[in-house]
Amino acid sequence: MPSIKVAILGFGTVGEGVYRILNERKEDIQQETGHTIDIVSILVRDTAKKRLVTPGTKITNDIQEILSDPDIDVIFEAIVGEEPAYSYLVEAIEKGCHVITANKMMFAKRGSALVKHAEAHGVQVRYEATTAGGVPIIRTIMSLLPADRVRRIRGILNGTSNFILTKMREEEIPFQAALYEAQQLGYAEADSTDDVSGKDAFRKLMILSALAFGRQPDWQDVPIVGIDGVTTEAVQDASKGKLRYRHVAEICIDENGVLRGSVGPVLIGSDHPLHGVDGIDNAIIVDTDHLGSLTLIGPGAGMYPTGSAMVGDFLQIIGKREPAVIS
Amino acid sequence: MPSIKVAILGFGTVGEGVYRILNERKEDIQQETGHTIDIVSILVRDTAKKRLVTPGTKITNDIQEILSDPDIDVIFEAIVGEEPAYSYLVEAIEKGCHVITANKMMFAKRGSALVKHAEAHGVQVRYEATTAGGVPIIRTIMSLLPADRVRRIRGILNGTSNFILTKMREEEIPFQAALYEAQQLGYAEADSTDDVSGKDAFRKLMILSALAFGRQPDWQDVPIVGIDGVTTEAVQDASKGKLRYRHVAEICIDENGVLRGSVGPVLIGSDHPLHGVDGIDNAIIVDTDHLGSLTLIGPGAGMYPTGSAMVGDFLQIIGKREPAVIS
Repeated sequence: MPSIKVAILGFGTVGEGVYRILNERKEDIQQETGHTIDIVSILVRDTAKKRLVTPGTKITNDIQEILSDPDIDVIFEAIVGEEPAYSYLVEAIEKGCHVITANKMMFAKRGSALVKHAEAHGVQVRYEATTAGGVPIIRTIMSLLPADRVRRIRGILNGTSNFILTKMREEEIPFQAALYEAQQLGYAEADSTDDVSGKDAFRKLMILSALAFGRQPDWQDVPIVGIDGVTTEAVQDASKGKLRYRHVAEICIDENGVLRGSVGPVLIGSDHPLHGVDGIDNAIIVDTDHLGSLTLIGPGAGMYPTGSAMVGDFLQIIGKREPAVIS
Repeated sequence: MPSIKVAILGFGTVGEGVYRILNERKEDIQQETGHTIDIVSILVRDTAKKRLVTPGTKITNDIQEILSDPDIDVIFEAIVGEEPAYSYLVEAIEKGCHVITANKMMFAKRGSALVKHAEAHGVQVRYEATTAGGVPIIRTIMSLLPADRVRRIRGILNGTSNFILTKMREEEIPFQAALYEAQQLGYAEADSTDDVSGKDAFRKLMILSALAFGRQPDWQDVPIVGIDGVTTEAVQDASKGKLRYRHVAEICIDENGVLRGSVGPVLIGSDHPLHGVDGIDNAIIVDTDHLGSLTLIGPGAGMYPTGSAMVGDFLQIIGKREPAVIS
């Protein structure tokens, strides 16, 4: 039985999620794909930190120890920030590795270059986990194209912002108190600027734009408004009118092929598909020529949801058998 | 450039949808996949009926004219009912054709046998269009497995029933009047027994059960209740309590591996993901170990949505290139 050798770059929440799922689902994956999976090495920042990993898996803080290993087939990348992640992946691709990334900051900006580089080297780049965590929006849009044409994508792409807006409404508390609660629960980082300013949602929107329309608008042409300006009074006034604030990222293409994007708080009525999407969930509505509207709602972050998005990418690369239908 | 030769069995709403999409999206499909698509023949019941089809496409009511053509690579089947569809597809598989079906009645019962038969002959069977029309629930569940484990599937799987319940609530009219309206709008057949009795939703639930759990419960163990017993008074009483009737099909697996299914009207509160799903839309909630809850909402029927589900299957069979990411 052929063994597939993988490395994981970054062992934070997402990297650990991948590690756990590959171990926990080892037997089912083996049975379904015909492959054993061997986690050869993990790149960490601090090798002194104690970690519960299987004996035989190398823990290193030296990327070259991983990239110089000629046996590695697939690299999972779960590092934060554009560099050095991008350079690591470029080198991995040149060595013939398939690449799976969760790095939205890097991919929003350098995804195009990475995909072209991979095509030139005959390997794959997959990025389901960059956008909306466990919600399989990348695979879904890919599977609609080219038989259908996407016209508009709208959604809640940042779970932290949605959690904060939900708390402000439900508990009638101000933004700062809701943010503090999100931080206590681990839903927001100590530095949550990118989440509450709308930058994080913007990056995911740009990834979706590139996928659905083959390109992105000029970044400076997209207005980005965060939720930090939404007041308790505004939320309460909205509630009286049966409206809810949602932080919505939207991109659409007009008849002349011009892309228009926006990111910001929007008032949503009770019959809108985004009305009921509370807490840390993400939601995306895709409008197409043939389907009309397709809505996906699910967990936008978390160890297992995001890890499972990456393992899903992995299974598509190694090619799993179709699940059999047995009555 | 290699040409792929296809036949369409059945030229009702769905078959015509496939025909139109393959023609309308011809150039994009060619560019993305590297294949030209040649619609060689269409099986119809009445050859005398006038149809706008491309010259060169053979219209026939003789299945053997199609099955004896050694050049056909892929068969789209959009016939209603178990037979003769099943026998046609068995024969097509034996001749080495890939098969794409929208036939839920046949597939709920004979899907297992068909898939095994296809495996034995080295061809594929795809069935996205059998369940929830344009909503890509089959592909989504397939892509979650085997890295994740499905625990429960719930949803609105019959758009006609959902339309009727919506009209009964919004317009405060009785079941019969709402059914008549659905028929006038083409959302319900003249004989809508299978829709309003819950049988149609049940069949789709059995297809999802086989996919997600590898098997189906004994059919006679699944209680099936339709919407024909829901009274105007009951709908109005529910509305007063901010509840809505939804016709929900549900299947779950317990810790001992026992499957429990049910189909029937359920009262839904305002914070439930199915609360806002009105009209002819379908919605499915999949609960898994890793993802928690994933919800998909979209058109459950119609020429273009269902046709595009079948063309999506087709593209997966012929293997399309990944859409490039260009920034």
